This record gives sequence, C-alpha cells and structure tokens, in this order.
Amino acid sequence: MTVNIDSEQLLTRLKVLGNTGREEGRLSRLAASEADKAGRDQLVTWLEEAGLEVHVDRIGNVFGVWNVPGDKAPLMMGSHIDTVINAGIFDGCYGVLSALSVIEAMRTAGVEPDRPLMVGAFTNEEGVRYAPDMMGSLVYAGGMDTDAALAVIGNDETVLGEELARIGYAGDMEPGSIVPSAFIEAHIEQGPVLEAENQLMGAVVNLQGISWQKVTIRGEANHAGTTPTHLRTDAGLAAAKVITFLRQLVENSDSVATVGTIRLGPNAINVIPDFAEFTVDLRDPDEATLKAREVALSEFLSELERQDGVSVQKKTLARFEPVTFDPEIVGIIEECAAARQLSCRRMTSGAGHDAQMMARICPTAMIFVPSRKGISHNPLEHTDDASLIAGAQVLLDTAMRIVAR
Amino acid sequence: MTVNIDSEQLLTRLKVLGNTGREEGRLSRLAASEADKAGRDQLVTWLEEAGLEVHVDRIGNVFGVWNVPGDKAPLMMGSHIDTVINAGIFDGCYGVLSALSVIEAMRTAGVEPDRPLMVGAFTNEEGVRYAPDMMGSLVYAGGMDTDAALAVIGNDETVLGEELARIGYAGDMEPGSIVPSAFIEAHIEQGPVLEAENQLMGAVVNLQGISWQKVTIRGEANHAGTTPTHLRTDAGLAAAKVITFLRQLVENSDSVATVGTIRLGPNAINVIPDFAEFTVDLRDPDEATLKAREVALSEFLSELERQDGVSVQKKTLARFEPVTFDPEIVGIIEECAAARQLSCRRMTSGAGHDAQMMARICPTAMIFVPSRKGISHNPLEHTDDASLIAGAQVLLDTAMRIVAR
Repeated sequence: MTVNIDSEQLLTRLKVLGNTGREEGRLSRLAASEADKAGRDQLVTWLEEAGLEVHVDRIGNVFGVWNVPGDKAPLMMGSHIDTVINAGIFDGCYGVLSALSVIEAMRTAGVEPDRPLMVGAFTNEEGVRYAPDMMGSLVYAGGMDTDAALAVIGNDETVLGEELARIGYAGDMEPGSIVPSAFIEAHIEQGPVLEAENQLMGAVVNLQGISWQKVTIRGEANHAGTTPTHLRTDAGLAAAKVITFLRQLVENSDSVATVGTIRLGPNAINVIPDFAEFTVDLRDPDEATLKAREVALSEFLSELERQDGVSVQKKTLARFEPVTFDPEIVGIIEECAAARQLSCRRMTSGAGHDAQMMARICPTAMIFVPSRKGISHNPLEHTDDASLIAGAQVLLDTAMRIVAR
Repeated sequence: MTVNIDSEQLLTRLKVLGNTGREEGRLSRLAASEADKAGRDQLVTWLEEAGLEVHVDRIGNVFGVWNVPGDKAPLMMGSHIDTVINAGIFDGCYGVLSALSVIEAMRTAGVEPDRPLMVGAFTNEEGVRYAPDMMGSLVYAGGMDTDAALAVIGNDETVLGEELARIGYAGDMEPGSIVPSAFIEAHIEQGPVLEAENQLMGAVVNLQGISWQKVTIRGEANHAGTTPTHLRTDAGLAAAKVITFLRQLVENSDSVATVGTIRLGPNAINVIPDFAEFTVDLRDPDEATLKAREVALSEFLSELERQDGVSVQKKTLARFEPVTFDPEIVGIIEECAAARQLSCRRMTSGAGHDAQMMARICPTAMIFVPSRKGISHNPLEHTDDASLIAGAQVLLDTAMRIVAR
C-alpha cells in the first residue's frame, strides 16, 4: 500500500507556524513565553483537527495520540517548536509538523496500524531561556527530575513551572508515562554536508560526543621591544600553537575541533601576553576516538609546559558521550529512501537533538534534510521544498513499515 | 685626571626623588600633575644647590646649565622625571640624576671643560596623560610644533599648556634654542638582556624601528558540531597561523614580533569564528630588515587568503624608523667602561627614549644599566647599586673625554 504526504499542507503549516508569535518581523518563540503559547495553541488546534487526543505532561511536552486497539507501545515521532532568538522557521517545527502529516496521511488513507502513533513536541529544546537545553525530552526520558526542571530559573528571572502554568501548558500527565516502542525525529541538518554533497536527506546513524574544555595558559608579561625572542614566555603564542595543533589533530577524520573564544592578558599591543584563556570544543561520533583526542590535547599541553615554559590549566566545561541510533530503523529509512529513488546518505549529527534523550528509553533514529549553507538559528535558515517533502515522505514510509500488521 | 662620582649622593637622591609625589604608597608622577610639580621642584632645588643656571622652556623642559667661557655648544645629558601610573623609581630619573652627579663631580674636582655642560629633564616622556610620548624632546628637536603640543588635551580632559602654567613650569625659553654638541642619556634597560648576560652596563648603538599593525581576518561563522573540517573557514585558526608564523619569522634574529591583543567574533564556544582582529608589534634595529619582515607578513597574509579562503585587511597603527646612535660616542663609552674594567656590551634599545629625538639634532648615545627580570613601569623595577654607580661613572668618564681641552 502506497501512501503519500499532503505536501502542500505541510509546507503551508511550516509557514503558518513560522509566523506564529513573530514580533516586529522576528521569530523568537522562547520556551514558555507568550510567543510559545501562540505556537502551542496553533499546534494543538491542528492536532485536534486531525482527530488526535491531545495530552500535555507536567513539563509541558505536548502530544497528539492516534489510539488504536491492542497492547503495543506507540510509535512516537516529533521534535520541538520552541526557537532561539531571531530564529528560522524549520528548526524543530519540521520534525513536529512532518510527524503530524505522517499520521494524517495514514488516517486519510485508511491505514490500520498495529500500534498507536503519536506526535511529540518537547518543551525547551533550545535552552535559550532556561538551562539545560533539550530539557523536555531529558525529563521525559528520566534524565532530570520533573520538579527540579519546573523550578529552573530563567535568564529573565522567571520560573519555568510558573511560566508554563501562566500560558496554560502545565499538564498533569507524568513525563515518561508512555514509553514509545520507537522514536523518529525529522530535523534540518543545521550543517553544510547534505547541501555540499547534493543529497535530499540523511539517515542519521549517531550523534557526536562533545567535549568542552577551557584552557588557561600563563606565561610572563614583558616589554614587546626590549625582550629578545629567546627570553620570552608568551602565553598567546602557546595558545596559537594549541589552535593550529587541534586543526592538525582532526584533519581528515570524523572529529571536529573548534576554538571559538579566546582572551589574552594584559591585552596590550606592546606587552607580551602572560595570560591566554580559550575554549576547546571537540566532537567525535566514537567515544574511544573522542577520548583519544582529549588525551592528545593533554599531551600537547604538557609538552608546551616542558618546551615553552608556560603553565597550563584545563577544566572540563561539558562532556557528553556519543549516541548511537537504532541500526534497524536507520536501515529502514535508507531502504524507504532508496525505494522512492530519493538520495540519502548515512551521517552523523553534529548538533544535539531531542532524539538523543529519547534514545535512552527506546530505539531511536533521525532523518536530516539539508540546510542551505549550513545556516541555522538564523532567519536565513532554509531547506528546499523538495527536500522537506522527500524527508517527510520517507518518515511516512518508515512509519508504515514499523506499524505494518 | 681621574674624577669619581659621589655614589652615595646619587643613590640617596634616587630614593628621595622616588618618594616625591608618592601618594598612598604609589608613585604616579604623570606629566604636569601636582606630583610632577613636586618632583620638578626637588630637581630645581638640587640644580640650584649645585650652582647651575636653571632654564625652563615653553614646553616645560627643565635645564641646569654650567656655563663656561668659549663658543662651543654644550654637552647635554639627561632624560625625564615624569612616570607612568604606579611606577618604579629608576625609569628616567636615573638619567637626570646621574647627569647632575657627573656635572657636580667635575665642578668639585675643579675640571675646566672646553664647553658648557647641562642637565636636561624633558616633559612628558611617558605619554600616559598626554599623547604622544617623548613629547618634550620631540618638541625640543623640532619634530612637533610647540603651540600644538601645548594645546594637546589629556585623557583627563586637561590642556597640557594650562597644566604647565598651573604648576609653574611654563617657561619662556624657546625649545631647541640651545643645540647641544652632543647628548648622552643614561637609562635602565627595561629589558632582560644585561641581567641575563651578567653585564654591568650596555653601550646602546641603536634603537629599534617599530611597526605596529592591526590585522583583521574574516571567515565564516558556522556550527562547531555540524560543520566538517573541510567546509570550515575559521578566522581564529587563520589568526593562530599568523601568530606562529611571526615567531618562526623572527627566531634567531635581532627582530622581535609580538601579538599582544586578539579579539574573536562571535566569540562563542560552539561557533566557528568568522572574525579575528589582532595587533602585530614588529621591531628591528635595521630599517631594511624591518621592511623585509613587513613584506614577509603581507605575503603570508595573502597566502592565507588563497589557501584558507579567509579575507584579510591590515592597517598600520604606527611606524618609526630605527635610530642609529653616534658611533664615536658609543666607542668612547666602551673605552671608558673597559678602562675601569666594568663589563659592558653593545646593544640595541627595544624601547623608545628621549635620546632618539635628540639624535635628530646632535650626535647622541645612551648607556643602559640592567633591569632585574626586565621589569619596568612597575614598582618592582630594580637596578643594583653597583650597576647604577658603574653606569654613572662611565657617563662621567665619557663626558670628561668629550669636554677635555
């Protein structure tokens, strides 16, 4: 049985939701804000129009459930609809609305699934207003206490629980009370790989582990004119060596390394820096490799201490192990794409997603669609209609395969 | 005829002047301030006690003149007594007080010089309150118009000319009206070379040329997780390559290169920098070499544009050609040190000094004494008594040779 997505409806809804909560031309639907309430209200309207049961849990996650007889656990699909400040319209929303399109297409076509299907829209994936990010799915998967999450104070001094109650989305369902049989999240790539390789979509096999470190190097501040090269202990030069080393370390591998921030002291044009502090963002989809990169960095820093006379401290700011998605679902996604002759490549997710939390409690996978120039978290975020439709269609075909009797 | 410095008096005066204008334990004798007035008053008292004629010119330079019959132009020795904020006691003051000691020793010993001798204390060498630095000697040497200098507005919104009048040091002598037959400045090294090589003093043969540039590199800001290495245009990495290149460029040469400041944008831990701006301080005592260093940097930046895809702009912030001191006087200094079996090495000045301005109008040289750990512009500034005395003695012997009938 072949069922097709209502692509026009999906594209229209993406635009409508993308304009919901927009103020002075900017889309900033921060978690539990008035704008988020408007987005949630629109989503709930569509869920109800599609004939789904709407549930809201205590952390504000919104679910639309198509109940069917039987005792199988539901297939859940979804993502989030909160956004960053001055966002694009696809990040998160694409996963929620394509999930809704999938369920509607199946209902319209008279499919009789072997288990319930549900759309999930998780609270506060972005983490802009309340930390940590991916909070709704983290709580749902049991990784954070619900009451602790509700008590989180935002960067605007508000309390998440109070804000959820204020906008009418403090539900009574216990987070995690429905454990899905599987979870699939469609999402924009937020990176440049699919566009660069001219692929319509990606089957995400894993999600990079992340190692964030802060490195502090101390040298000696001396006069830039009177201090000969051989008598210098230049903390800024040592930092530069680390930055170029990190690039050499990861070149031609799956790892990425980024030094995004740096600060020198005393930061004067004619004084040799005695202080350099910078961040290192190291990522790899394989835990053993990521550990090896961390060790290589440590060894290089020790070598700097010995050779350059600087002293080095480092501090772990964050550390997440890689997540491996369910190979069976990933295989189905690839087969479904191939069956429709839609180009698809296996790939790693470089960003964090709700799916990584859901992977703690059920078999999980993701479908990526291209992001033009890799741009995300920006009004310029764009995915071609053809890819948006192709990704949703493969999500539908994959769901059909999973719930076939 | 052998004449000796009154070393006890010199050391005592250095301490007394170092405590003049000190407030709450800190010495901050900024040009034309109340503290500077106190220092100037003390100096004038000593000049008068030594029997010298005191002259103050329109830019506030103070001179103590020992007039003798004849038509030869005077030998001038000196430096400055203004300081930075929270200064040490030797920078500048050593050159002024050792010059005074030299003249007093000659007068006491009954020396009959062939020309007048004079002490000079130049206004605003440090440039902390009013720009540019080395202002008094610059004006004296004709490099800046006197009225323009008097009209300079300080970082505290005061006008230099008004402040000089207020503290009683707006003289009526025209700057530059006495062109010396030679100028010699004794000064602390403000660098680590003499201490590292265990020398009592240095005969300064030249003063480094300085090239200050600001380099701005633009790349592409992208997600630190989702952007593979080969698709990155990292402005911070490009900056790091420049910093390591500069060190390689000058290693094992007389040049020095310093990157003292850097700023990245957007400066976020998980965003590849699309912006890096840093300063380059390049110095060399030889103009042709300094130019070659600048060209090498430019070529490296062009190569970065081609290879790394970044775009680079650079701007000259300051550029001074090297100054060569008078070989004859430098030779006399070396001979005088050798005659007393005092260790002395030829060297380059890495910092700017009043002597570089005076070199525009007369044969000029400098004597350096060691700075412990190279520290200057800091209360920890220190030179051992033995070096202070040795340097002043060689200044005396050199002056004796020059003014011998």
